Amino acid sequence: MSDIGRRLKELGVELPAAKTPVANYLGTKRSGDLLFVSARVSQIRGEVGSDLTTGEAYQAARETVIHLLAIIKEDVDLDAIESVEKMVGFVRSSRTFTEQPKVIDGASDLLVEIFGKHGRHARTATGVAQLPFGAAVQLELILRLRERA
Amino acid sequence: MSDIGRRLKELGVELPAAKTPVANYLGTKRSGDLLFVSARVSQIRGEVGSDLTTGEAYQAARETVIHLLAIIKEDVDLDAIESVEKMVGFVRSSRTFTEQPKVIDGASDLLVEIFGKHGRHARTATGVAQLPFGAAVQLELILRLRERA
Amino acid sequence: MSDIGRRLKELGVELPAAKTPVANYLGTKRSGDLLFVSARVSQIRGEVGSDLTTGEAYQAARETVIHLLAIIKEDVDLDAIESVEKMVGFVRSSRTFTEQPKVIDGASDLLVEIFGKHGRHARTATGVAQLPFGAAVQLELILRLRERA
Repeated sequence: MSDIGRRLKELGVELPAAKTPVANYLGTKRSGDLLFVSARVSQIRGEVGSDLTTGEAYQAARETVIHLLAIIKEDVDLDAIESVEKMVGFVRSSRTFTEQPKVIDGASDLLVEIFGKHGRHARTATGVAQLPFGAAVQLELILRLRERA
Repeated sequence: MSDIGRRLKELGVELPAAKTPVANYLGTKRSGDLLFVSARVSQIRGEVGSDLTTGEAYQAARETVIHLLAIIKEDVDLDAIESVEKMVGFVRSSRTFTEQPKVIDGASDLLVEIFGKHGRHARTATGVAQLPFGAAVQLELILRLRERA
Repeated sequence: MSDIGRRLKELGVELPAAKTPVANYLGTKRSGDLLFVSARVSQIRGEVGSDLTTGEAYQAARETVIHLLAIIKEDVDLDAIESVEKMVGFVRSSRTFTEQPKVIDGASDLLVEIFGKHGRHARTATGVAQLPFGAAVQLELILRLRERA
């Protein structure tokens, strides 16, 4: 079992079947040593601040990372990931909801649980009025792959 | 005529005159082998889900790619584009509109029509409440250029 | 005193104490010759187009650059910055506010005042309904560092 595979097991994280995009875009695109990962939305739907609490949305962000890893694993060995460079997190926010960073912490925390210090990343956490499928959270990633991975 | 020039002609796509930014930013910025392309908004205005249908917004996304190519061509030969790495698409969305991916497909589809498999990219399609000039769609790109292009 | 330090002094810009992130993400992440800089929000709060004018929001964008520089300086020598590659600016916008580019010009203008032609960048200026802490503006950057910096 791979190192990251073992770590996921320790954390009790099971990767779901990946839903590969059916349109003219890719789940991931390799660019030199970088891997651009297409945004995924949470399976948890709803507007944060009205339908969902900050804590529920934190879980939605955490779960979205698991779905991103499932997509990434279709294209590259998870052990080939050297570090997480950048994450952008969009939170579907009510007019008055301003705790987007606390929501996206759900994703940042899990990335560090999985990848250790290499999971620490630059980040943007922002609020939007609507997301695909009415999801609560949407995350995109830029990863660095080991050379020649 | 260049390869991409010929392909655009086959597709019946005519590049308009580029509107170069008049402020302290650039239409494109070369960064190593990457080309960061500033976001452009669609000439089609309106809120998707109320003023505009998904199909109309799909066309807006398609047209925005054409305007992006016109800007890019000011700075680099279109034949120097090796691949489309990443696209972010913002859709000006009504409170209940959740089909942002179908809208941004208008851009993804045209990129693949033009660049073939090298036009396939990582992507984020998200919803925002407002865009510059009240446009329906806004797109930004990261491209990879051929070495020494 | 460093070149950029001198330039900041000429411009009358004083860098505040940096607020380093306390969560599982970083203020900046080095990635090869690129530096991904986490988004910062303006200290100026309010919705642009209702609570704040375009001119006030322009100042908010300008001030946010200063806070970004303070964070960057914690991690790298400001003289190690070769150029500003990309900026994304989110403007907390009322339903009818569409002058996001004029707001983000506040950031672009200051970057060029500080870094000269190397401060010119690719850019996205977009509108969102809400931002962390109810801030008016949020900015993220991608910088290029001098080799071996």
